[in-house]
Amino acid sequence: MASTEIPDIVIGRLPVYLRALSLMAAAGQEITSSHELGEKLGISSAQIRKDLSHFGEFGKQGTGYRISHLQEQLRRILKVDREWTVALIGVGDVGQALVRYNGFRDRGFRVALAFDTDPVKVGQPIGDLTIQDIATLPDVVREQDVQIAVIAAPAKAAQEVAELCVQGGVRAILNYAPINLAVPKVIHVQYLDPVTHLQRMTYYLA
Amino acid sequence: MASTEIPDIVIGRLPVYLRALSLMAAAGQEITSSHELGEKLGISSAQIRKDLSHFGEFGKQGTGYRISHLQEQLRRILKVDREWTVALIGVGDVGQALVRYNGFRDRGFRVALAFDTDPVKVGQPIGDLTIQDIATLPDVVREQDVQIAVIAAPAKAAQEVAELCVQGGVRAILNYAPINLAVPKVIHVQYLDPVTHLQRMTYYLA
Repeated sequence: MASTEIPDIVIGRLPVYLRALSLMAAAGQEITSSHELGEKLGISSAQIRKDLSHFGEFGKQGTGYRISHLQEQLRRILKVDREWTVALIGVGDVGQALVRYNGFRDRGFRVALAFDTDPVKVGQPIGDLTIQDIATLPDVVREQDVQIAVIAAPAKAAQEVAELCVQGGVRAILNYAPINLAVPKVIHVQYLDPVTHLQRMTYYLA
Repeated sequence: MASTEIPDIVIGRLPVYLRALSLMAAAGQEITSSHELGEKLGISSAQIRKDLSHFGEFGKQGTGYRISHLQEQLRRILKVDREWTVALIGVGDVGQALVRYNGFRDRGFRVALAFDTDPVKVGQPIGDLTIQDIATLPDVVREQDVQIAVIAAPAKAAQEVAELCVQGGVRAILNYAPINLAVPKVIHVQYLDPVTHLQRMTYYLA
């Protein structure tokens, strides 16, 4: 089946399945089922089976899924059976936390470049990296074939930053700044704004 | 229409509309349209009109929406026309960034309590707060009627933290730890794991 036929909402659940499987594997578990996975994730087992069926046959009726095999297949499908180089833009509080975060490496990502506009920060080390001038971003990311950027810049700078990323050939942006980015439709954008997530829940509170 | 009839995916878009309207208002704009809003957000104008129609009539055919009025109505619908007290658990890199984040206050939230397990951190100030012992969490949040928690604890601690939150009467959890939480169905949970968001995009990359 062509990948374009699979709904994005299905793709969005695959990383969640992979994360749950990795936790099970880390705990020494070898086999799981759509039922168990569903219980853990609050998703119906039918939904999980249907999602996975887009990509082939991963378990046998009655015997469940071999976790290592399913992990391997999901990593291949999501293309995280390799390491993606990520450029981080904005080395404020959030950016610094991201550089120090040790949860990227074993899940397919390495923050290998850090940029900022602040002349005081440019040239300074952060973790193993040296903060680079954002003006150099398009050339640097193009040269290193970086396809993924994480924007942790302030809201008022984020649109301009996104444009520099697109200029440099970036294809996917994870945006922490609390604004919607105007970028060409071929660019993938995911948003991590804690407030929109909180507001989505207050609707339901008394 | 009863609120329970409105799909959660619609509710999820309302904070995004509100955020875009607030940026327009901050730029001095007074009127917008579903067309303009849709262009900014990459959502069809028909979708926006349909989403808003669940809650009443907010604009006039041909004259668009008065931004201040629509903001006011969305704030009321999302219940962020008030200030919610938020408890933060885990004062590591992410937690510290959240305490310092100045984008909560004008959007309906105030991080008023901070908890950690680390005896070195407990009792220390962070911003205007004093870090409290997590063992006291259920009593403290119940006493102060805190309904919202932000979990920025490590993955291995997050489930236990979530249970303490639920014990204390918390109804909504924003979880930064990269695990799915097992909590009663009445508890609302939103997840902010940068890696799942990145993996959702790598699927589409070459």
